[in-house]
Amino acid sequence: MRTYPSDDGKASFVSLERGEDLLDGLNRAVSALGLEAATLQVIGGLEEAVVGYFQPETAEYLPIRTGHVEICSGLGNVSIRDGQPFIHLHLVVSGPDGSAVGGHAMEGCRAFVVEAYFRALDGPPPVRQDVEGMTLKVWPGV
Amino acid sequence: MRTYPSDDGKASFVSLERGEDLLDGLNRAVSALGLEAATLQVIGGLEEAVVGYFQPETAEYLPIRTGHVEICSGLGNVSIRDGQPFIHLHLVVSGPDGSAVGGHAMEGCRAFVVEAYFRALDGPPPVRQDVEGMTLKVWPGV
Amino acid sequence: MRTYPSDDGKASFVSLERGEDLLDGLNRAVSALGLEAATLQVIGGLEEAVVGYFQPETAEYLPIRTGHVEICSGLGNVSIRDGQPFIHLHLVVSGPDGSAVGGHAMEGCRAFVVEAYFRALDGPPPVRQDVEGMTLKVWPGV
Repeated sequence: MRTYPSDDGKASFVSLERGEDLLDGLNRAVSALGLEAATLQVIGGLEEAVVGYFQPETAEYLPIRTGHVEICSGLGNVSIRDGQPFIHLHLVVSGPDGSAVGGHAMEGCRAFVVEAYFRALDGPPPVRQDVEGMTLKVWPGV
Repeated sequence: MRTYPSDDGKASFVSLERGEDLLDGLNRAVSALGLEAATLQVIGGLEEAVVGYFQPETAEYLPIRTGHVEICSGLGNVSIRDGQPFIHLHLVVSGPDGSAVGGHAMEGCRAFVVEAYFRALDGPPPVRQDVEGMTLKVWPGV
Repeated sequence: MRTYPSDDGKASFVSLERGEDLLDGLNRAVSALGLEAATLQVIGGLEEAVVGYFQPETAEYLPIRTGHVEICSGLGNVSIRDGQPFIHLHLVVSGPDGSAVGGHAMEGCRAFVVEAYFRALDGPPPVRQDVEGMTLKVWPGV
């Protein structure tokens, strides 16, 4: 993992090495950059991907696994969960015929080429919390 | 709808409550934040989605409706149309098998979890206008 | 191509005229704005699209061609390659039934409506380089 920060330290490109776990590498970037609230964009390719579909009833992610894919789109954010900076990232990936598959980025996405961009919010970070009627921790909407 | 603004007021995260209409909620955020020109990113999930495919011949959006989906990607902007701030948002959503469906975000997208990010352009907003040969209002390209 | 820059010149919306080649138009924007390192977002529609799937073995992009599509998502960056600013852009596009197809934006994407946003990194640009074990030029990850 290597960071390419802006002069004011509020933004950075990040590159991962081939074979790194996507979320591991991005989490190390978050630590290195000292981010608590930020927006995140990712493109590149993965040797394999695991994306999840959240089932509200079971509060579990149904995993979808792929082989080598393009990262067509990675959009996410950094905020606070359980007192720590936490990355929430959603992906759209595509195979040789272009067919797109998407979902919540899970452990097990292995980098081929990963080009990420973080920009700090530069304000109080949203905090993920238990909210009535929700089976996952969210930023309160009221 | 709740805003999580930056210290300088130029950017904000936004969270919607479960059940809110996506465009309604984001439009209220645009008003609350006083945005006239901004970039927009969204991830999360929707209880149901309506995305459109624009048909240039009829100048109408062909709607595609889904059940509960992940918002894999929401990219958009705020600019001026008919004298008012206007959100243009495109979505990629995915179901339990990960299959991705995309298009123009329409009325009827109901929030499950919505995490949005706005950043103001901080300059004169683009203005949507009628342009020869186009059947929708666009930012002039010359 | 027309730019809609921010007051400080660090960001800009960009609109392309119908019929312009997507990468050509965005490259002219990069020149006009003097960008060397930037993040890029695109939505809109294309009269036709060509997106590629990178095959590591052959170091070639397998092209996927479409008719008129929505640009559901365009995410990319500007950095330095061979001494010049270079756009790397990935797309997700969708047709009348919403089915999403994705990949690396290639020559031959013809604009219907293109609304892009650039924000400069405002720091030393990443430089694409040959790296051992990779068959394309990447930002070093160590």
